[in-house]
Amino acid sequence: MGNGPVLQNLLTMGEVWDAYQVDLQEVESQIHKNINSEAPLINTVANQILSSGGKRIRPLLLILCARLYGHTPKEYLVLGSLIEFIHTATLLHDDVLDEADLRRGQKTARRIWGNQTSILVGDFLYSEAMAQIAAFRNHGFNEVLADACRKMAEGEILQLCANFQTEITETNYLKIVEFKTATLVAASCKVGAIIGGASLTEQEALYRFGLNLGMAFQLADDRLDYMADGNRLGKSLGQDLKQGMVTLPLLHLLQTCPQAEKERIQAKIKAHSITDRDLTDIIGLMEENDSLTYAMNRARDYVDAANLDLMPFGDNSAKRSLAIVANYMITRDQ
Amino acid sequence: MGNGPVLQNLLTMGEVWDAYQVDLQEVESQIHKNINSEAPLINTVANQILSSGGKRIRPLLLILCARLYGHTPKEYLVLGSLIEFIHTATLLHDDVLDEADLRRGQKTARRIWGNQTSILVGDFLYSEAMAQIAAFRNHGFNEVLADACRKMAEGEILQLCANFQTEITETNYLKIVEFKTATLVAASCKVGAIIGGASLTEQEALYRFGLNLGMAFQLADDRLDYMADGNRLGKSLGQDLKQGMVTLPLLHLLQTCPQAEKERIQAKIKAHSITDRDLTDIIGLMEENDSLTYAMNRARDYVDAANLDLMPFGDNSAKRSLAIVANYMITRDQ
Repeated sequence: MGNGPVLQNLLTMGEVWDAYQVDLQEVESQIHKNINSEAPLINTVANQILSSGGKRIRPLLLILCARLYGHTPKEYLVLGSLIEFIHTATLLHDDVLDEADLRRGQKTARRIWGNQTSILVGDFLYSEAMAQIAAFRNHGFNEVLADACRKMAEGEILQLCANFQTEITETNYLKIVEFKTATLVAASCKVGAIIGGASLTEQEALYRFGLNLGMAFQLADDRLDYMADGNRLGKSLGQDLKQGMVTLPLLHLLQTCPQAEKERIQAKIKAHSITDRDLTDIIGLMEENDSLTYAMNRARDYVDAANLDLMPFGDNSAKRSLAIVANYMITRDQ
Repeated sequence: MGNGPVLQNLLTMGEVWDAYQVDLQEVESQIHKNINSEAPLINTVANQILSSGGKRIRPLLLILCARLYGHTPKEYLVLGSLIEFIHTATLLHDDVLDEADLRRGQKTARRIWGNQTSILVGDFLYSEAMAQIAAFRNHGFNEVLADACRKMAEGEILQLCANFQTEITETNYLKIVEFKTATLVAASCKVGAIIGGASLTEQEALYRFGLNLGMAFQLADDRLDYMADGNRLGKSLGQDLKQGMVTLPLLHLLQTCPQAEKERIQAKIKAHSITDRDLTDIIGLMEENDSLTYAMNRARDYVDAANLDLMPFGDNSAKRSLAIVANYMITRDQ
């Protein structure tokens, strides 16, 4: 597949997507080639959810980290598709847990086929991915992806226990984000590094890069949930809070607003009774207290840290693209 | 741990359990040592379900297959506990899928903590097991267990699609049993074989042994579901059929009874309207048509096949114990 695109002046995220289209198309075709169970129901459900507009940011990171070393052997691109399987498995289970009817503006699998099917197809996609990963007989792939899966499951439970708990600390919150979101992003980068032939030190640097990028992604996402001007497909304002998720802007607000306000908000959350009017009040208070700016600054810190992780690597298109992806985490509006 | 028990005259299943108590205790202590998450909810739920009277047949098989070679290094016994984690994960998800309130006579986790927790703790136990298995850096362990997990998930979906379908063939049915039940039993045997240092040929023989034994187990279990005189803790007669599961005794009955009866039974099943009185009729017809004997004979065929798989191995206590376990599959009454 040659040495990949030679682009001196990559500037936008759109250009990055375009530049790696060939590799991404291979991932895409592997995704659909791998949905090949003897149970037609698995194929139907998996095809629907895997074709419903996911951005494939994890496969892109895998490709870019491999291409830091100038090549991506085609046979390894299937790992990008298997990481999408794992990610999709978590979405299927999440939608059951959240009783969600919509995802990315479309009916969820549980809405169409029911909870049973969503649980089982999630289990299948996850275990299919693990089985195909094991077949590579590469301990690095096995360990980093199994570890990510364990942390995602643990993060989901920590999240479940933290719901409606306004006393959680920022440290607790960041740990949930790390486990739930950042570890699979980090694992995608490390798998790419292993494919590229990175040294152990470089593998760790790219893992940390992915971890920082994943943290930035989720913090920015949490902030977008309170942004009235966001153009967020299929999502409505303050959805996280209505589901009991206490995220960074709210934690900041509770730490900085007057005690009386704090107690009032805490009581509403504890009582699971946040109305649209409460939400408007809370967003107003967040603006007064710079809570959204605070969350954005923390997300930016993670992007800065991610860029530092890239420093040891020699300049090439892939490295510049990774920096663009990192920056995109805090500039995207959906 | 020496060369294991030297018992010339093992005869009963109880004596097998007793003879391998030291290894089984180590598995038991590893199970509880491994329930060590930062999320207290995981530990509570996992401890409850893992202490609720599971027989540990899979760890026993692992131990016995390893002991065919005269030794079980203690550090590998943790694999027995990880296989129990995987098995337990499937039980947690099964209970959600079946909306079950009781298992082994006790309240299910979903009844106590809800579906969300059961789904997530299932995900956690499964991914925790895969992560610890990966840490052994043994491709044999990774591959056979990941393959078993994939087949179990696929088997569950094939089962879901086959529910209330009276036209499924015996071949379809046996495949579901193989995927849902027998592959994890087979994997337990193969993992034991790898621990013992078996050749690839011997690993395959013990895998086949486990597969045959797992088939016999499930076929006997399906038959017990229609046995009024069974002493089945926490299970009531005809539970499978009421949930839509079309198992071997019923398939045999539908193949052998008069057309009018067949159509009447099929209509009831399709309509999801099996009453206790229907069940009594069906069991009466099964007795007339020797359907329960047929299922028992098929289970016995699998036990015979399992015993053939053992033939190449030299005589020792472990081999005799494996034969006793195989025979127990069709003699147990619960």
